[in-house]
Amino acid sequence: MNTLAVELANHSYPIHVGEGLLSDADLYSPYIGPGGVLVVTNETIGPLYLDKVLGALDGVRVESVALPDGESFKTFATLNRIFDVLIEHRFGRDVTIIALGGGVVGDVAGFAAACYQRGVNYIQIPTTLLAQVDSSVGGKTAINHPGGKNMIGAFHQPVCVISDSETLTTLDDRELRCGVAETIKYGLIRDPDFFDWMETNAKAILARDAAAISEAVIRACQNKAEVVAADEREHGERALLNLGHTFGHAIETGLGHGEWLHGEAVGAGMVMAASMSARLGWLRQDSVARVTELLSACGLPLGAPESLSTERLLELMYIDKKVQAGKLRLILLEAIGKGLVTADFDMQALNATLSTCREAA
Amino acid sequence: MNTLAVELANHSYPIHVGEGLLSDADLYSPYIGPGGVLVVTNETIGPLYLDKVLGALDGVRVESVALPDGESFKTFATLNRIFDVLIEHRFGRDVTIIALGGGVVGDVAGFAAACYQRGVNYIQIPTTLLAQVDSSVGGKTAINHPGGKNMIGAFHQPVCVISDSETLTTLDDRELRCGVAETIKYGLIRDPDFFDWMETNAKAILARDAAAISEAVIRACQNKAEVVAADEREHGERALLNLGHTFGHAIETGLGHGEWLHGEAVGAGMVMAASMSARLGWLRQDSVARVTELLSACGLPLGAPESLSTERLLELMYIDKKVQAGKLRLILLEAIGKGLVTADFDMQALNATLSTCREAA
Repeated sequence: MNTLAVELANHSYPIHVGEGLLSDADLYSPYIGPGGVLVVTNETIGPLYLDKVLGALDGVRVESVALPDGESFKTFATLNRIFDVLIEHRFGRDVTIIALGGGVVGDVAGFAAACYQRGVNYIQIPTTLLAQVDSSVGGKTAINHPGGKNMIGAFHQPVCVISDSETLTTLDDRELRCGVAETIKYGLIRDPDFFDWMETNAKAILARDAAAISEAVIRACQNKAEVVAADEREHGERALLNLGHTFGHAIETGLGHGEWLHGEAVGAGMVMAASMSARLGWLRQDSVARVTELLSACGLPLGAPESLSTERLLELMYIDKKVQAGKLRLILLEAIGKGLVTADFDMQALNATLSTCREAA
Repeated sequence: MNTLAVELANHSYPIHVGEGLLSDADLYSPYIGPGGVLVVTNETIGPLYLDKVLGALDGVRVESVALPDGESFKTFATLNRIFDVLIEHRFGRDVTIIALGGGVVGDVAGFAAACYQRGVNYIQIPTTLLAQVDSSVGGKTAINHPGGKNMIGAFHQPVCVISDSETLTTLDDRELRCGVAETIKYGLIRDPDFFDWMETNAKAILARDAAAISEAVIRACQNKAEVVAADEREHGERALLNLGHTFGHAIETGLGHGEWLHGEAVGAGMVMAASMSARLGWLRQDSVARVTELLSACGLPLGAPESLSTERLLELMYIDKKVQAGKLRLILLEAIGKGLVTADFDMQALNATLSTCREAA
C-alpha cells in the first residue's frame, strides 16, 4: 500500500492506494465514531463491493443506500434520497458517510456530507480510474443543474481516500478510457515526464496491467495533492485541473448529462484546448499532434459531436464557473507540461476551434 | 449608524445598524464587482423595499427574485428557484447575492450563495427583528427537510450585514414578538444585564420605540458577534445560541413548518428549558418565574401545543442536530445569564417538562 497526503491549511488527509484495501478495517476505524456510518453506493457497484466494506465495519452501526447509476442521476432528487435515508435512520452530526463508487457517487455523497446538518465527515472509496486519479481527491463536490454541470456544490474535503485497485478489475473499457483521459491531463498541465510516461504506458493501462495502473494512480494523485494543497478553493493554480473541462462540460450539457461520459468529453476538450493553443501560436503543432495521437490511441473522441452547433457550444461555455465579469477564462497550453489560465485570447481562435475540432476529425 | 464587527479567523465583516441604510450606496459598493447582483426577497418584502435597494445599486447589473413568503417555503424547490434565476441570467462566481427579508429569505438565499458554483458572496439585509438580532449574523444557512428543521445547510458567512431599523416599521406584531423572544435569549444564556434591560424595555420595543429597538439590536448583535467569533462552526460555546431551539424545532416540525412562527416556538422552548433546569435543581424557581413573566408579558406561548403528544415531541427532539452518539444534548440554564450545553440530565426531568409545559399553562 502507498499512502500520500493532501496537506491543507486546516487539516490534511491520507490517500491510500493499493490492492485489497476495501476489507482493511484499520483504514476506516480512525474516522468512525459512535454516530455510525452511511455507505452511499450505486446499483452497479453496490452488488460488487458493498459486502467487502460492510465486512470491514464489523460492530459499527451501518446503513447503506444505492443510488441509480449514471451522470444523469447527479441531481437534487438523488441528493435528497441520501438526506431522506440519513434522517429516516436519525443519523446525527457525528455520522461518517462513505462514498463507494465512481465520480458521480463521490460528488453527490460528498455534497450530501457537506450539507447534512451543515457538514459531516466522509470517506471517499473511488471505484473507477477516473475517480481514483481525480474526482475523489480535493474536496470538490457537486450536483448538476439542467443548465450546467456541477453548478451546485461545495468544497468539502474527505477525511480519507481509499483507492483499491482491485475495484478497477470490474470497470468496463469505456470507463477505463475516461480515467486515462483525466490521467493524461496532469501530464499536460504540469508534469511533462508523466506525459512521456503515459505515451509509453497508456496501452498497458488499457490492457489492465496492475503495475501500470497503480503507478498512474499514484503519480496522478501526487500531482493533484500538490495542486490542491497550494490552492484549496481554486483562486489560482487549481483552475489548471480544468484543462479540457470548459469544452467538455459544454458537450456534456449540450448532449444531456450522461450521453457522453465525463472523461470522453474532457478528452475531446483537451484536444480542442491544444488545437486552440496552437492556433494562438502558443503551442507547437507537433505538440498538438502528440496530444491527438495519444488520445486517439486510447480510443477517446478528438472533438465535439457534430450534433452540437458552434453557436450552442459557445453559449454553453459561457455558463461555465470560470466565467468572470462576463469574460470566459480557458485553460490552454504553452507546452506539454505547462498549462495556463487566461481570459486574454482572440475569440476568432475559439470560434475556429469549435467549428473545426469535431468528433470525426 | 452603528457598526459592529464579526471577527473571524479568516475574515471579518461589518454589521451596520441604523435608520435609512437601505438606500446608502456606499454600504453596498465595497462588495459588488463586475459580476453584478441578484437580490433575493419575498413577495411581502419585495414590494415594500426592493426599490430602495435597487436605487442604491444604480449602474450595477441587477436581477431580482421574489420567493413565496413563509417558513413552509424554506424548501429545496425554493432554493432551486434561486439557482434557476442565477443560471438563466448567467451569473458567474463573481455575483453578489443580496438577501432582503426575514430569516427564511436569509437562510435560503445564504444557502444558495454557499452552493452556487461552490460558493459566492452575499449580503444580509434582515427586515425582521428576529433576523436582525439573530439569523442574519453568523453564517448559518439552511433549508428544512420534512423530517427536521434546518437539516440541510452550510456555514457560509455574509460579507456584510445591513440592519435598517426603518424596515421594522412594517413588521406585524406577531413577527415583532418573535424577534423579542430571540433577543431575550442572549440575556438568558450569557448577559444578565441585558436580561434585566429587556424586563424594563420589552414593552417599549413592542410599542415600536425606535431607540429601544435600536439598542436591543445592537446589544443582541454584540453578543452574537462575540459568540460566533469564538466558535464559528459550533464546536462549543456557540451551541448556547440554541437555547429553546431543540424544544422549538420539535414543535415547528411536529405542527408543520410555518404553523407556529420560529420565534414563538423558541419562546415556548426557552420556558421549557428554564422549567426543566429548575426541575433538575440547576435553576432557582424565582428565575423560572422571571422568564415566564417576561415571555408572557410579550405575548409569547409558554409551552408546547396540546396537539403534540409528549412521545411525539421526544421523538422529534432526537432528530436534532445536537444529538451525538444517540445522546440528546440540550441547552439548559444555571442562572439567568448563564447557559450550559449538556447531555447529562435525568430523562425523567425531560419527560415531565414535555408533559407539563403546555401552551395553556
